[in-house]
Amino acid sequence: MAGNSIGTAFRLTTFGESHGPSVGGVLDGIPAGLLLDVNRIQAELHRRKPGQSNLTTQRKEDDQVALLSGVFEGQTTGTPIGFSIPNGDAKSEDYAHLKDRYRPSHADFTYDAKYGFRDHRGGGRASARETVCRVVAGAIARQLLEQMHAPGALPQVSAYVERVQDIGMPSPPQFYERQIVDASPTRCPDPETAARMASRIVEVRQAGDTVGGSVVVVARDIPAGWGEPVFDKLQSDLAKAIWSLPAVKGMEVGSGFSGTLLRGSAHNDTFAQDGNSIRTLTNRSGGIQGGISNGEDLVLRVAFKPVATIAQSQDTVNQSGEPVQVKGKGRHDPCVLPRAVPLVEAMVLLVLADHALRQRSARL
Amino acid sequence: MAGNSIGTAFRLTTFGESHGPSVGGVLDGIPAGLLLDVNRIQAELHRRKPGQSNLTTQRKEDDQVALLSGVFEGQTTGTPIGFSIPNGDAKSEDYAHLKDRYRPSHADFTYDAKYGFRDHRGGGRASARETVCRVVAGAIARQLLEQMHAPGALPQVSAYVERVQDIGMPSPPQFYERQIVDASPTRCPDPETAARMASRIVEVRQAGDTVGGSVVVVARDIPAGWGEPVFDKLQSDLAKAIWSLPAVKGMEVGSGFSGTLLRGSAHNDTFAQDGNSIRTLTNRSGGIQGGISNGEDLVLRVAFKPVATIAQSQDTVNQSGEPVQVKGKGRHDPCVLPRAVPLVEAMVLLVLADHALRQRSARL
Amino acid sequence: MAGNSIGTAFRLTTFGESHGPSVGGVLDGIPAGLLLDVNRIQAELHRRKPGQSNLTTQRKEDDQVALLSGVFEGQTTGTPIGFSIPNGDAKSEDYAHLKDRYRPSHADFTYDAKYGFRDHRGGGRASARETVCRVVAGAIARQLLEQMHAPGALPQVSAYVERVQDIGMPSPPQFYERQIVDASPTRCPDPETAARMASRIVEVRQAGDTVGGSVVVVARDIPAGWGEPVFDKLQSDLAKAIWSLPAVKGMEVGSGFSGTLLRGSAHNDTFAQDGNSIRTLTNRSGGIQGGISNGEDLVLRVAFKPVATIAQSQDTVNQSGEPVQVKGKGRHDPCVLPRAVPLVEAMVLLVLADHALRQRSARL
Amino acid sequence: MAGNSIGTAFRLTTFGESHGPSVGGVLDGIPAGLLLDVNRIQAELHRRKPGQSNLTTQRKEDDQVALLSGVFEGQTTGTPIGFSIPNGDAKSEDYAHLKDRYRPSHADFTYDAKYGFRDHRGGGRASARETVCRVVAGAIARQLLEQMHAPGALPQVSAYVERVQDIGMPSPPQFYERQIVDASPTRCPDPETAARMASRIVEVRQAGDTVGGSVVVVARDIPAGWGEPVFDKLQSDLAKAIWSLPAVKGMEVGSGFSGTLLRGSAHNDTFAQDGNSIRTLTNRSGGIQGGISNGEDLVLRVAFKPVATIAQSQDTVNQSGEPVQVKGKGRHDPCVLPRAVPLVEAMVLLVLADHALRQRSARL
Repeated sequence: MAGNSIGTAFRLTTFGESHGPSVGGVLDGIPAGLLLDVNRIQAELHRRKPGQSNLTTQRKEDDQVALLSGVFEGQTTGTPIGFSIPNGDAKSEDYAHLKDRYRPSHADFTYDAKYGFRDHRGGGRASARETVCRVVAGAIARQLLEQMHAPGALPQVSAYVERVQDIGMPSPPQFYERQIVDASPTRCPDPETAARMASRIVEVRQAGDTVGGSVVVVARDIPAGWGEPVFDKLQSDLAKAIWSLPAVKGMEVGSGFSGTLLRGSAHNDTFAQDGNSIRTLTNRSGGIQGGISNGEDLVLRVAFKPVATIAQSQDTVNQSGEPVQVKGKGRHDPCVLPRAVPLVEAMVLLVLADHALRQRSARL
Repeated sequence: MAGNSIGTAFRLTTFGESHGPSVGGVLDGIPAGLLLDVNRIQAELHRRKPGQSNLTTQRKEDDQVALLSGVFEGQTTGTPIGFSIPNGDAKSEDYAHLKDRYRPSHADFTYDAKYGFRDHRGGGRASARETVCRVVAGAIARQLLEQMHAPGALPQVSAYVERVQDIGMPSPPQFYERQIVDASPTRCPDPETAARMASRIVEVRQAGDTVGGSVVVVARDIPAGWGEPVFDKLQSDLAKAIWSLPAVKGMEVGSGFSGTLLRGSAHNDTFAQDGNSIRTLTNRSGGIQGGISNGEDLVLRVAFKPVATIAQSQDTVNQSGEPVQVKGKGRHDPCVLPRAVPLVEAMVLLVLADHALRQRSARL
Repeated sequence: MAGNSIGTAFRLTTFGESHGPSVGGVLDGIPAGLLLDVNRIQAELHRRKPGQSNLTTQRKEDDQVALLSGVFEGQTTGTPIGFSIPNGDAKSEDYAHLKDRYRPSHADFTYDAKYGFRDHRGGGRASARETVCRVVAGAIARQLLEQMHAPGALPQVSAYVERVQDIGMPSPPQFYERQIVDASPTRCPDPETAARMASRIVEVRQAGDTVGGSVVVVARDIPAGWGEPVFDKLQSDLAKAIWSLPAVKGMEVGSGFSGTLLRGSAHNDTFAQDGNSIRTLTNRSGGIQGGISNGEDLVLRVAFKPVATIAQSQDTVNQSGEPVQVKGKGRHDPCVLPRAVPLVEAMVLLVLADHALRQRSARL
Repeated sequence: MAGNSIGTAFRLTTFGESHGPSVGGVLDGIPAGLLLDVNRIQAELHRRKPGQSNLTTQRKEDDQVALLSGVFEGQTTGTPIGFSIPNGDAKSEDYAHLKDRYRPSHADFTYDAKYGFRDHRGGGRASARETVCRVVAGAIARQLLEQMHAPGALPQVSAYVERVQDIGMPSPPQFYERQIVDASPTRCPDPETAARMASRIVEVRQAGDTVGGSVVVVARDIPAGWGEPVFDKLQSDLAKAIWSLPAVKGMEVGSGFSGTLLRGSAHNDTFAQDGNSIRTLTNRSGGIQGGISNGEDLVLRVAFKPVATIAQSQDTVNQSGEPVQVKGKGRHDPCVLPRAVPLVEAMVLLVLADHALRQRSARL
């Protein structure tokens, strides 16, 4: 049943497999009058693109997006934006040996179980290739959020790699400007930690293996009031969006799992007046209370598992259940985290844009 | 904007505040012909009910559900089930002092920020009172899942309290039968751990404080093939459902955050033949690969923060931003976890029932 | 599959059968701060109520609505309004003889075909009894539309009976104030025509038969700009809403079928300036162009078939296909039109309220 | 707000303006395993294509569809089908003179009223150009319906031009095979009537004018049981779909408006046994009772207004409200009806495919 749309007022629908002619989508619900900077969309795509450094796959994806509708003389018209990104450098033959084999911790087996057969080339629809569409839509959402608000409180969403395996940031989650994040190919904003992460990734790649870790995303200057209880709470829609990304194994908001070690008296965020506004002195709530943003920084942490495709022989079975071996032949990432940063941002941006519009109906 | 519905093929819509005449909802999309045991619905409500032991609030809620439609001579007719649960023992006067004050880490401030004012009595719509509706619907979903499948592979969903603060289960997540879970009022299936948890909760309550922890839910005998990539992946819809519960701060599937410490070669789940079926030797995937169930146990962990209402004076501000104090006067839980167990089960059941029906359209 | 909700930003979900404990629903997406006059809701229910005159069924339905949530101190809170209306005067025994028989042009056969069996009492879910929920929601939508707009341009929706069988209004569709419409139990605003209609209905009832006809609904002072092309065009959502009413066989907007006899040069509505606004000199468009309201009167015509239940013996078959006879024993309307007037208004109001809110996201 | 999707289980989302690079869409919810004949999609597009005869516009649109995803080795994979159709022969300069003028009975004024400005080239999103996407999706829906059912009861949907202005078919609605319909460029299946229609259209075109009329669509061998009361009744979803087409002014199911002249005793459809099945002796219900298909022919009539663009000077105003004149310079249809035939079929097919899948969840 249809399951390739996300959002209510602002809705993205995507299509596309790894080795088809193109991937793309339709972004519907964009208000008219948005001045759209296409270069900024392209810049976000470049952040996601493989082959940016020796830490990521050397597979080449040009990722030039074509906007097919919804924009006239530089402005959105209120009609949907269709877009597509051609699939360039597809080497289907890399996957021929996998046609009837189930790669461990991949979607091969489950796609067969669901649909009866699958497009095995490059993972088909289950390939992370589809995430390029999310980045296009997220880049438009970002511009929408910026232009919906006064420059004095510009909503900003920035993610970074917080941890690779056991190598983590020395400081708690906070907002980092993009240039700080992008200064290292690891997208870890602390140079010393970044260097250690880079060494680890190189070491692991040389061992034909992969690693995971966590990404933190912080959204600041989000107005209080966004979120639609009780089922479309802000964290609920954020969770749906984040968990739709490949390889996610965990998510936390604010104090997360470690907050459960505290007593209520220590965990509660105390309200206090700050100039003309009411703020909390701490932010264990992660910017959301009762499903609605409270004006503090929105803080999420996302766990990504180690990439399932490894350059080692692995035991598995084929469609008949017979024991066989598989070995990744394609060009794969030893660590998904640096490229996950723009994906996490995109999903958060999509949810925020949706709720920014939904909030317009909260009061008479 | 409307946000009180969840599910696509099988959809729950709820209404109700803590201190209004009743809470209730509409459950739509139930196939005709389900033999509905109302006693089993009531039994689930009793599991959620406050006042079950000295570990939970002594507030009395009778929670007698009235089914108003959709059932004829013991069977569902295919039309929606409307239901309501009267709000009995409401003491609105307990809340009068909170009318213009913002309780720390509650939804008072954000509801005001969103809607301009709020029904302050008992937390209004933000009260956990609304979760009773989820339990009703979940209890129907459970019967649906059972009757949709052959007795040989009866889908079962069971949750338990895994950890209270730092007191945790000695063993990794697994399926426990309900009678084991419910043997202790803590709903921790390990007696020794349960006893320590109970002591802690009593101790904390006596200190006028509260604690949090984690709940694990395991669903077994879920067929491979459920889930609708790429946005309605099974974990994505589960996450939306779980995160719509009050007090959730974290969620993991399968190996979760700790899985990110492993290398891919150690994390991957190896496929192997088991009789006539293909299984994985380990279950770090938590029963889901590529957004689709793989037939293994579905394993989720959910973090619940310590209850925000404490029996101590806390600093805060009123609507004008002036410093004031609040102190919980109502009858509140020192620990939400035992009562969260049926809630987590209900949300998982709702999502599974929805996807069980959606899966009927996966193939020609 | 779930199909008992209508609307996107402003959404009604209903439940209930003719002979269950109650019918009701949830109205979600109501902005906070609406001053709700419950007496006006009740007044709309009285307009729909059977037994108002000798032209309608003598079945007694008290139709006292209970609002269960979403309103606090006279104002909507932004949370959903749950409501229910008890089913009072149900005489299930009137229907026992129909248990296994298919009444001609009723839903008995199709419900059996769809669901495998049915609640045969009073038509079950297929009974027009469910429409009472639409009237409740429509009455709230009306107040919302009124309070969303300046008094100078108060949106108003008024319907009337235009034709009973071949007895029709002498003048084309126009707006009539409610007191004019309700002056006759026929709800035809022209006294002479109303008198002839009343005679016909009495005559037909005495013959144990029924009649149909048409209702016209006019909405005035609807701002230009409402409607969401290309699939949620204003007329498209209006059509879905109107066609969900029982007994509808036709619908026209503006010039309708007769407009197709004109050439384009004669059919087009010429634009002209009128004070500060741009208006059309004629209104063959019926207030909608390109799926969006143009500020002119919204004009719809709806055909209702003669009531299927007649007080005569009719040939039919039972569930086994054997020839049997049925005869209406219950208390039924000889003509549905007078009571259809508030239903048509309600459906139009629901769609307009939804689009009024959706329009808030049309521009940056 | 997002409004460019239609359908629930089987959902089409479209994008595209008349003069952008392309129009296209995403069709989501197609079951895996459908053998897709792309030539049949292309054949449907040819039926809609302008320039087929001297009765339609000479504007050339090649309308070659590219399927971008969701099909592997000739079969659908269960993942969404993205598609696009390039906009070839766009002459934007034909529209420059209309930039600030409001064409009578067009969407120019309302798009400005809604969005603040518009893409005026060729009508932008309001152009009938977008309907090409519906034809692509409808052609896929047709193949789905065919392959979901046994050859013995092949669902078929066929439309034809029933009336042009006052020139109508001599016989009541019935099913006509496509070759009969397409034998005349008018798409009227009665040769003598078709000839008169053709003369009228030529005559009107020569006068620089346009005409409207009605299209009848008949779907046969639709199983009893499709439709989801009470808001997603079959006729309700059909109405939404049909009314989303440009230029629709009226719709009837079965006996329609003329049925309201009959008494109930004459209007009711009598049930009778026919071999092993239960049928009705007449079909005034038009194949739907209580919102659910009853197995009889589904019969709809749709009124299309005369095309608004005429080759004559017309009075109107510009954006400032000043009196100006407009005259159609582009290449437009004198009569939309022949090309509306595949559009009406497509919309009916989309709704039927959606309900065919939804019906899979009706029973346990």
